[in-house]
Amino acid sequence: MQLGMIGLGRMGANMVRRLAGGGHDCVVFDVNHDAVTALEAEGFTGAHSLEELVASLDAPRSIWVMIPAAYVEGTLEQLIPLLDPDDTVIDGGNSWYHLDVDRSKKYAGDGIHYVDVGTSGGVAGLERGYCLMIGGDDTAVERLEPVFDTLAPGVEAAERTPGRTGDIAPEEQGWLHCGPSGSGHFVKMVHNGIEYGLMAALGEGLNVLAKANIGKEDHEIDAETAPLDAAEYYQYDIDLAKVTEVWRRGSVITSWLLDLTAEAYLDDPNLDAYSGHVSDSGEGRWTIDAAIDEGVPVPVLSAALFQRFSSRGRSDVADKALSAMRAGFGGHKEKKESSR
Amino acid sequence: MQLGMIGLGRMGANMVRRLAGGGHDCVVFDVNHDAVTALEAEGFTGAHSLEELVASLDAPRSIWVMIPAAYVEGTLEQLIPLLDPDDTVIDGGNSWYHLDVDRSKKYAGDGIHYVDVGTSGGVAGLERGYCLMIGGDDTAVERLEPVFDTLAPGVEAAERTPGRTGDIAPEEQGWLHCGPSGSGHFVKMVHNGIEYGLMAALGEGLNVLAKANIGKEDHEIDAETAPLDAAEYYQYDIDLAKVTEVWRRGSVITSWLLDLTAEAYLDDPNLDAYSGHVSDSGEGRWTIDAAIDEGVPVPVLSAALFQRFSSRGRSDVADKALSAMRAGFGGHKEKKESSR
Amino acid sequence: MQLGMIGLGRMGANMVRRLAGGGHDCVVFDVNHDAVTALEAEGFTGAHSLEELVASLDAPRSIWVMIPAAYVEGTLEQLIPLLDPDDTVIDGGNSWYHLDVDRSKKYAGDGIHYVDVGTSGGVAGLERGYCLMIGGDDTAVERLEPVFDTLAPGVEAAERTPGRTGDIAPEEQGWLHCGPSGSGHFVKMVHNGIEYGLMAALGEGLNVLAKANIGKEDHEIDAETAPLDAAEYYQYDIDLAKVTEVWRRGSVITSWLLDLTAEAYLDDPNLDAYSGHVSDSGEGRWTIDAAIDEGVPVPVLSAALFQRFSSRGRSDVADKALSAMRAGFGGHKEKKESSR
Amino acid sequence: MQLGMIGLGRMGANMVRRLAGGGHDCVVFDVNHDAVTALEAEGFTGAHSLEELVASLDAPRSIWVMIPAAYVEGTLEQLIPLLDPDDTVIDGGNSWYHLDVDRSKKYAGDGIHYVDVGTSGGVAGLERGYCLMIGGDDTAVERLEPVFDTLAPGVEAAERTPGRTGDIAPEEQGWLHCGPSGSGHFVKMVHNGIEYGLMAALGEGLNVLAKANIGKEDHEIDAETAPLDAAEYYQYDIDLAKVTEVWRRGSVITSWLLDLTAEAYLDDPNLDAYSGHVSDSGEGRWTIDAAIDEGVPVPVLSAALFQRFSSRGRSDVADKALSAMRAGFGGHKEKKESSR
Repeated sequence: MQLGMIGLGRMGANMVRRLAGGGHDCVVFDVNHDAVTALEAEGFTGAHSLEELVASLDAPRSIWVMIPAAYVEGTLEQLIPLLDPDDTVIDGGNSWYHLDVDRSKKYAGDGIHYVDVGTSGGVAGLERGYCLMIGGDDTAVERLEPVFDTLAPGVEAAERTPGRTGDIAPEEQGWLHCGPSGSGHFVKMVHNGIEYGLMAALGEGLNVLAKANIGKEDHEIDAETAPLDAAEYYQYDIDLAKVTEVWRRGSVITSWLLDLTAEAYLDDPNLDAYSGHVSDSGEGRWTIDAAIDEGVPVPVLSAALFQRFSSRGRSDVADKALSAMRAGFGGHKEKKESSR
Repeated sequence: MQLGMIGLGRMGANMVRRLAGGGHDCVVFDVNHDAVTALEAEGFTGAHSLEELVASLDAPRSIWVMIPAAYVEGTLEQLIPLLDPDDTVIDGGNSWYHLDVDRSKKYAGDGIHYVDVGTSGGVAGLERGYCLMIGGDDTAVERLEPVFDTLAPGVEAAERTPGRTGDIAPEEQGWLHCGPSGSGHFVKMVHNGIEYGLMAALGEGLNVLAKANIGKEDHEIDAETAPLDAAEYYQYDIDLAKVTEVWRRGSVITSWLLDLTAEAYLDDPNLDAYSGHVSDSGEGRWTIDAAIDEGVPVPVLSAALFQRFSSRGRSDVADKALSAMRAGFGGHKEKKESSR
Repeated sequence: MQLGMIGLGRMGANMVRRLAGGGHDCVVFDVNHDAVTALEAEGFTGAHSLEELVASLDAPRSIWVMIPAAYVEGTLEQLIPLLDPDDTVIDGGNSWYHLDVDRSKKYAGDGIHYVDVGTSGGVAGLERGYCLMIGGDDTAVERLEPVFDTLAPGVEAAERTPGRTGDIAPEEQGWLHCGPSGSGHFVKMVHNGIEYGLMAALGEGLNVLAKANIGKEDHEIDAETAPLDAAEYYQYDIDLAKVTEVWRRGSVITSWLLDLTAEAYLDDPNLDAYSGHVSDSGEGRWTIDAAIDEGVPVPVLSAALFQRFSSRGRSDVADKALSAMRAGFGGHKEKKESSR
Repeated sequence: MQLGMIGLGRMGANMVRRLAGGGHDCVVFDVNHDAVTALEAEGFTGAHSLEELVASLDAPRSIWVMIPAAYVEGTLEQLIPLLDPDDTVIDGGNSWYHLDVDRSKKYAGDGIHYVDVGTSGGVAGLERGYCLMIGGDDTAVERLEPVFDTLAPGVEAAERTPGRTGDIAPEEQGWLHCGPSGSGHFVKMVHNGIEYGLMAALGEGLNVLAKANIGKEDHEIDAETAPLDAAEYYQYDIDLAKVTEVWRRGSVITSWLLDLTAEAYLDDPNLDAYSGHVSDSGEGRWTIDAAIDEGVPVPVLSAALFQRFSSRGRSDVADKALSAMRAGFGGHKEKKESSR
């Protein structure tokens, strides 16, 4: 089917390529004209303004917006007035689901369908397919089924779950109509919240392995340093590239994130290319916010988020306050060097 | 090759079956004679005492012990005196790695090799193969390579990691000689610590999804109940069986644990078969102990462990103390019903 | 000075008593007429409607609202239209500070001052005084200084901080103009967030003491129960009433919360009066929300909040999912009894 | 009574001064001869070797060891052979309580009493008194009562707990015989574990206050930075010296740690004297170890410990692994600057 795509970054560009491979007809637009030109060179129809994009599509139109969350609102404000009733706008980025609820109500007054799609898969999605979590009204979602079928990985991407029989359900293809507006981004938000937790669990475990040779180090004996009683049990030099590789087959923790980690350590055994300042992009935060609103305990997901903040130096005031208290009650001086 | 197996529970029985399928010759023993008889009926050579087991094997013997960690020490105390120099004992269970370090030193005095093997794979291992993390001296480990090759899943169980070329390394088969004694169980311990974190991340996220309809509930307005300001954003009835299924393909969080979760929800949509008292079996605890000894922050792995404790009612004293304090400073009365 | 008080619950009633003791003239109102009558019997001027309250006060009026956060908005909607320019409304409860920012802008259009006051002290405040954290415009705050001086505990409530000399600052009296609208409730919100953390730290420590006799118990030996290697080190029967008492003098952790805890254990050594379902009333949640917005790591404050949720059974879905996964990969059955 | 003191650092020197003030006769020793000389100048009897110390004391002797935990074992190995049956050795430092259990058994064979005393109070203890948590046999503890009475703050250091009547109990004086050997250090260990949690709760809250002006900053709009939706609610410049001061009177969180914090901020408003690398000295770690052995959830105490580790850069491997995974699935590049 015909689809307009706004946003030709890492995600949007690969998605139209995958759609083209599935026989769909994509008209592409980006505020960066070079990005449009590049895809025109691959044979796509390019548009150099929102007006041109809208004019290039047959009604009822379907226009997919695939841009950083912070720019979506401004783009929609320009786009919506150009559309006709029964047109559909899809926000495929990582918008906060509250905005979907608000937008869908607002646009419904103009007869415009609004579909929120949480899109997982990252840069590998072109080959691997995208996992799509979808919110919105039935009419609009049904109309877009051919697009979802192409973008999704397809059932053959994993073994069928024991107990599933008969026709292949959409969720087995890799896309799911989760519910009304906002539910797609809600499910994607939680997906990313989980992702933060999984990543942190792996990272922490690898750190325990990496420092299993601490018994080989000398440590100062003073009142500021916890003694290590069992140096003889910390004499291991563990090869993280090999361990992450061995876990990929047969272990309980096999996962795509582990695959990526094994690849990273193979390429760069000490990950020297990284500083360890870990960014976060919103969904992990919103997951905690939602959990709090719901009264759901999320000690693991929140710890994962907060460790990212700490990795960026954001615990500074708290840390200094602790050192000041220690000086206050114990006369303890801070040590210059990091100690065990 | 020839191998003696002590312990014919869920793990040990399946492992000898897989070994037999690979052409190995297994002599089997268990303190439960019915377990021996059952495997004899499958064609295995059974032994009805440790003495009989030892007598049935050619020197140098290789005897794999696959029993609950709490019984290993007692079993080894009976077994070791029956062995000859150059025999090898393998502890394939979930022993604390400190014990491996101590045992290997002790047995070395008698010329007996001690190999610790962390075995992951669970009840699916018969078909899927076992991921093996191995510690011990080179001689013993090399002698056991045929056994490891059969037990492990084999390289075809996952796509080869980009960047790996040439001969298939053991870690790509699914087994790894991690280092000296204890390192196998150390790596397995951390594997399980990570497993706890991954499971908790998934569980917490599913809980956030499950309660996304909280805006449909009425809540009391009183000083003991946090108000819900945004009921309109919590109107979703999310189908967990479908969501866990859709995440299996193309998402960033694809994993074996997710596969199992999808299967569980398909079978029992509210998991009514479970009470939610989550056991733990030692490795998660030891991972935190090791992290503390090493000075490694593990906020996520520890939160996962402690939530298991809480699920079993072990926070009782703390919780009551908090209610008592609230009564003390605020005159707050506990509410009978669980509230949001 | 003259002050109207709306809300005569635990907090409001004691506050007018303290104000009367300081020579202030309070007119009191509550939707519960009995509460008004009771204070009239103590000599206060009662009002039986908002209109009557407003009519009883001389312009420019100062009216303090001290009611559950969920009712504040509705009360203000009725009250504000009755007021004149230059009147002041004080919200002394636990409103979300966002509302203060919004309200102060809205009411400023009518020339009405809005002051937000975070009030700490609980039921002990009548005797002990109230710690007041105040946000709003300078004019209104300055006009209320006599009220703040009386409600606050006064400088003699604690030793003067070394380094403070000369005139006694308001913060040494126990009240502080923190900044513009919302800042009073913001600081009070964080105060309560900290309170949650302090309480949890105490509660967890007491739990570790209470179970220091676990080595006296027998434990099952099975694959579902972590072994206890060091039973000889867990043979202590610790008396929590005595320990909390001894910590009250000279220790680093002396605090008012500890005083209250010692009193509670003296009165009820096992806190049998409590179930351990710990409520929360909003501020702890908002503290985490604010921390997330600011990118500030709050692993301790969040863990304290989430443990309260867990104490109320809100981790149910997560816990069941974990048990289901354990059954899936390991064939583990849940144990009926809580185990160590 | 007569007492020997080994160790004349911050703690030991002040303790003999306080004891002298209470009329006790102290003989002092330190491996640092200057420390001995300094106290001799104050009028104390100095000893320049362990032998001289022992010879200077009348049997049955009482010798208090007040040195860093790591040196205690070596000192006792030299001291014990010099003693006679019925002499008493007191370890007043922060030894791991397991060692107390082991030592008391060993020394009992020689008829020597061993008493473990957890001593809280820090550098302020000379004036404020020390909170003493004591483990050991009744005979030895009773003999030392005069010493405990002098070292402890005394009942007047805090208001009597409501409900306590009649004779003043030792725990109201500030010392407590907690139980058999090890129980004193066990209770002190948990005290310190709680202390870590209290400190972290305060520190985190102060950090939330300190960054309440984040809405005034400009933030990049890109896929690596979480958007801040509510900049208008983060416009506060909070004065931490004033806030910590106001909380000292009448609030729920009044505590000695808060007093110290207020003093620190008054002296150094941004705590520029500190780097924020927070040490830990063992007890916080052992508290978590004990909690794990007991199956007690300690999410707050552990989070506090792990944040200290993170403050010292010990999360490096985990953080880098997360950045590598993000690059792997999303092509995300690390940002050079710390972002919100």
